[in-house]
Amino acid sequence: MFGTCIENVRRLVPLVHNITNYVTVNDVANVLLACGGSPIMSDELEEVEDITAICAGLNINIGTLNARTIDGMFAAGKKANELCHPVVFDPVGAGASALRTDTALHLTEEIKFTVIRGNISEIKTLAFGNGTTKGVDADVADEVTEENLTESVTFVKRFAQKIGCIIAITGAIDLVSDGKKCYVIRNGRPEMGKITGTGCQLSGMIAAFTAANPKDHFEAAAAAVCTMGLAGEIGFRHMIKGEGNAAYRGRIIDAIYNMNGDILDKGANYEVR
Amino acid sequence: MFGTCIENVRRLVPLVHNITNYVTVNDVANVLLACGGSPIMSDELEEVEDITAICAGLNINIGTLNARTIDGMFAAGKKANELCHPVVFDPVGAGASALRTDTALHLTEEIKFTVIRGNISEIKTLAFGNGTTKGVDADVADEVTEENLTESVTFVKRFAQKIGCIIAITGAIDLVSDGKKCYVIRNGRPEMGKITGTGCQLSGMIAAFTAANPKDHFEAAAAAVCTMGLAGEIGFRHMIKGEGNAAYRGRIIDAIYNMNGDILDKGANYEVR
Amino acid sequence: MFGTCIENVRRLVPLVHNITNYVTVNDVANVLLACGGSPIMSDELEEVEDITAICAGLNINIGTLNARTIDGMFAAGKKANELCHPVVFDPVGAGASALRTDTALHLTEEIKFTVIRGNISEIKTLAFGNGTTKGVDADVADEVTEENLTESVTFVKRFAQKIGCIIAITGAIDLVSDGKKCYVIRNGRPEMGKITGTGCQLSGMIAAFTAANPKDHFEAAAAAVCTMGLAGEIGFRHMIKGEGNAAYRGRIIDAIYNMNGDILDKGANYEVR
Repeated sequence: MFGTCIENVRRLVPLVHNITNYVTVNDVANVLLACGGSPIMSDELEEVEDITAICAGLNINIGTLNARTIDGMFAAGKKANELCHPVVFDPVGAGASALRTDTALHLTEEIKFTVIRGNISEIKTLAFGNGTTKGVDADVADEVTEENLTESVTFVKRFAQKIGCIIAITGAIDLVSDGKKCYVIRNGRPEMGKITGTGCQLSGMIAAFTAANPKDHFEAAAAAVCTMGLAGEIGFRHMIKGEGNAAYRGRIIDAIYNMNGDILDKGANYEVR
Repeated sequence: MFGTCIENVRRLVPLVHNITNYVTVNDVANVLLACGGSPIMSDELEEVEDITAICAGLNINIGTLNARTIDGMFAAGKKANELCHPVVFDPVGAGASALRTDTALHLTEEIKFTVIRGNISEIKTLAFGNGTTKGVDADVADEVTEENLTESVTFVKRFAQKIGCIIAITGAIDLVSDGKKCYVIRNGRPEMGKITGTGCQLSGMIAAFTAANPKDHFEAAAAAVCTMGLAGEIGFRHMIKGEGNAAYRGRIIDAIYNMNGDILDKGANYEVR
Repeated sequence: MFGTCIENVRRLVPLVHNITNYVTVNDVANVLLACGGSPIMSDELEEVEDITAICAGLNINIGTLNARTIDGMFAAGKKANELCHPVVFDPVGAGASALRTDTALHLTEEIKFTVIRGNISEIKTLAFGNGTTKGVDADVADEVTEENLTESVTFVKRFAQKIGCIIAITGAIDLVSDGKKCYVIRNGRPEMGKITGTGCQLSGMIAAFTAANPKDHFEAAAAAVCTMGLAGEIGFRHMIKGEGNAAYRGRIIDAIYNMNGDILDKGANYEVR
């Protein structure tokens, strides 16, 4: 059950090493605290192995990729692989520049990721070697809809199988697959797209959830995806007239802070295909 | 009309490339989303041209200038110039260090900016080659007031004409000039100065507004300045006892999120000189 | 009296130079504005001396330490020492990696700090040359409690005396010592630990408080520690059902924004040992 997954995060307080972008990093840290984990950020080659070694999970995000930190991503990823820590990859903007696409592809070759989470355009870029990512948002033409759901599920299953890790595609409908099964998750609100970084926050949470649930990374990843979507619904219900994306951003994190196993199990809206 | 300008942003959803500081970057991203644009942040020389090429506008901000990203500013600026994208420059802290002053002056020589937005001390630094910027805030002695308004308008018109781009000086009274005319804008609240980054946020918005209004960059820039000032007024009216600059920061972004053409046209408080 | 210390910050508006991490930097800037100071962030070797020279205080924080900015920390620290500006050091994560521990120790050898503020594990790392910091949080085994208070006070006094600067250890009970006396401060709330960066924010405030109170750095540092703890209590009283760490973060900054000498003097909860 998903509820057990978040309860395990609160119980075990996994320390998560984040090599992430400077746009949404503060929200990632606060979301990790909100869900029961503990964040540390470090991107310096000289120390990433030390930091990864004291952590329970690693979260790599290329949202503001730069030459200085790429080496640190490889070093930390390899160290985490050695230590059998879960490693999450968020290929922000893969497809938007050659550097991002190449780095993302190279990382997936060298590092054994536990979960890769992105929007559909980013994941297609990884699958096909190039993409039509519109900046950091998915191309509308790519989006997972009820109409193309069957083929989307087939795509994510095949890609998860081929690349050998859990794939989470988030959007209006979220898909999480381990190559055999696929969680189809319908939590969330469209207004979440008007806040920068809900995807980055989710990737951080996936690292905490998988770190605290070593026996079932697949269920843990899906539970994290559900948690974010459900928090988006709860936060939206708390919105007051005159509020907008700034208030909503805080209300989602607050909903995660107040989430527990019961709330999650009751609010989770998914099917398995 | 200013109202049309923001409606165009909401309709066209311009993707804006930001090379900006790590202090206020998250707010810049959320403001771009709030006004109807879409942000992407990238400062790495290896990819800035790719990123600029998929965007509709570029925003360069030297708030945490460092040697690594200066080359990226030049490369992105030149690429945007080639592609005839609007380019906004925010010379944060020009006058506060030789590096900032020199880089700002050098950028204005090499890049054709569409709009330069700063406080009066930063703009005087660009105009006279040196300044008395008090950190990132304007020197009180420089401030545009009702008393020195005529000479301030003359200064901004002349400097805009000389440098060949739109100049926006923001403070208690905002001035936006294309070298011939000058919008004198009296929206805003003094409490906005107690929030870090309202200037950076505005520069991001100017990039979105000019990108979505290619036929009249001058009106678009003034509309963005009015939008920020009016949002400051609306946000302030929503403040509750016990709140301070943290709440106010969110309330301003939320007011932008809820801004439309009608609200802007009714609330805009300006004259043209 | 502590109240006078914050009133001096509001009256003198000290400009504080921050070389700090990109996780909590925005909050540090807003807290500096909230308490009456003015922030500027700069970490580039080429300009840090210029920036420090126009400021009244310096705040060095190693929360996302990287090779590029270490040289800037030394250069700015030496310049501030030359100018007799107060310099605050926040050894975030000292003990979590060799790079952080070594850099922190080296900084304390080369720079004359006015105040070093950290959690107990970080300070023990500085005192003993190695530590058991759990990421960026204190090791539970190290925590200052009523049970070990006498020996903790002895430790902080001895270390302050040995290293020759004011030491502030913050946690459930805060200790601030100049080597002779020790403020034992019991303001604050345990929920503050669920927000990223309250420690970083406090270090920024200590820089502002010491800069604005040159005659008594010790009292100024303790006043800043009390201000943060008391703001944590006031902010917590303003919390509404459904809110969590995101709202709390804003409410604390807002409480600082609304703090004055009277509120601080009435709410300060401390003894001197």
